[in-house]
Amino acid sequence: MATAPKVSKTDGKNNHDAADEQADKEQQEAIEQIDEVQNEIDKLNENASEEILKVEQKYNTLRQPYFKKRSDLIAKIPNFWVTAFVNHPQVSALLNEDDEEALQYLTKVEVQEFEDIKSGYRINFYFDKNPYFTNEMLTKEFHLNDTGDPSSQSTPIKWNEGKDLTKKTNNGNKGKKRSHEDQESFFSWFGDHGDAGADELGEVIKDDIWPNPLQYYLASEIDEETGGDGGEDDDLDDEGNFG
Amino acid sequence: MATAPKVSKTDGKNNHDAADEQADKEQQEAIEQIDEVQNEIDKLNENASEEILKVEQKYNTLRQPYFKKRSDLIAKIPNFWVTAFVNHPQVSALLNEDDEEALQYLTKVEVQEFEDIKSGYRINFYFDKNPYFTNEMLTKEFHLNDTGDPSSQSTPIKWNEGKDLTKKTNNGNKGKKRSHEDQESFFSWFGDHGDAGADELGEVIKDDIWPNPLQYYLASEIDEETGGDGGEDDDLDDEGNFG
Repeated sequence: MATAPKVSKTDGKNNHDAADEQADKEQQEAIEQIDEVQNEIDKLNENASEEILKVEQKYNTLRQPYFKKRSDLIAKIPNFWVTAFVNHPQVSALLNEDDEEALQYLTKVEVQEFEDIKSGYRINFYFDKNPYFTNEMLTKEFHLNDTGDPSSQSTPIKWNEGKDLTKKTNNGNKGKKRSHEDQESFFSWFGDHGDAGADELGEVIKDDIWPNPLQYYLASEIDEETGGDGGEDDDLDDEGNFG
Repeated sequence: MATAPKVSKTDGKNNHDAADEQADKEQQEAIEQIDEVQNEIDKLNENASEEILKVEQKYNTLRQPYFKKRSDLIAKIPNFWVTAFVNHPQVSALLNEDDEEALQYLTKVEVQEFEDIKSGYRINFYFDKNPYFTNEMLTKEFHLNDTGDPSSQSTPIKWNEGKDLTKKTNNGNKGKKRSHEDQESFFSWFGDHGDAGADELGEVIKDDIWPNPLQYYLASEIDEETGGDGGEDDDLDDEGNFG
């Protein structure tokens, strides 16, 4: 145990007599006792973190059947996800016309937080057979390793020939009108691992869309049809008010 | 319930026949069912927040007797708090020489989070009888009101005549050498309510010093006495590693 530090420039008492030594000894004991109390506090803090994590894990599990049910219902609605994405201001900004066409084949989105929650999450995108790529599922996942460094990995997209939306169109397009602008594609995001610690699109999908995608699916209508059809819409009107 | 939005510019099917109407009806039902599932998810989220708050409150209560015991032990050590403050780089930057003298009378610091935690906290500073002011306790507290707006309030300091450390020294000082510099006083903080939502000193004391003041009390010594006296110091060596 360390000895009490010499503290104060203005203290002035530097002559040690027997009384001083007794006082030093008592202070030293007090420091050791503070250290013990501190260890107890640290243990309580660790227990608190563990209990909170367990609550989060419990509710993650409890939410799963509702997410499953929601996914099944969403599958009955054509273009649900592309509509929700188009109606989300931040995601919409990333979508070019071709992206919107390709995302009409997106039938299911899944956000999975890893069991210990703090270590990361994965987003799965399920696609119907489509003219753009052959993957049935595209995944991007985000990890924090033990030292807290973030990283991400994703499914390589198997583009059909001439259909790679992340590359500028060349002239081999058989006369089809395509309007590739200079804008990046939504699909470029899968290959972009530059800022895995603060992946903007990943976090928008996980924290903003996934908690309540229906409000984004319906958002354009709320804007367009002011007034609506009465009080039953209460639950849907408070878009944007996340906790 | 709102009707399904018209979605896709590229969908192309606008002729409604009986089959389409049936499909519309099914989609409408699916939307209503998603809304119901969403309400269940929202309820789970609220329950999760409540349970986490209860865990935090429980541990806040469990920590109290240890904080009390720690305060009693700290009271046995002269200049504990002023030493901890001087050894904390951010707090130290706010202290002028007079502040350091005045803070030698600081015997006890208390951080109290309000019962519902999210609404704010209070820091109490207890002082021995001292030549600077007559208050035995100075408090600063931080609130979030119902709409989330932050505010702070504090004890007005009853300075003894000519001892106000927040004002520049005038010449009525009876020959005592005082070295008032242009620097703001630590005590100015009590009267500063300009940025209650992100009060830097308040948050440093609450989140950085209060969880483990001993490490700051001992910090200068650890710097000075490299090597120390062996393995018993393990718990004290990991300063700076807050969770």
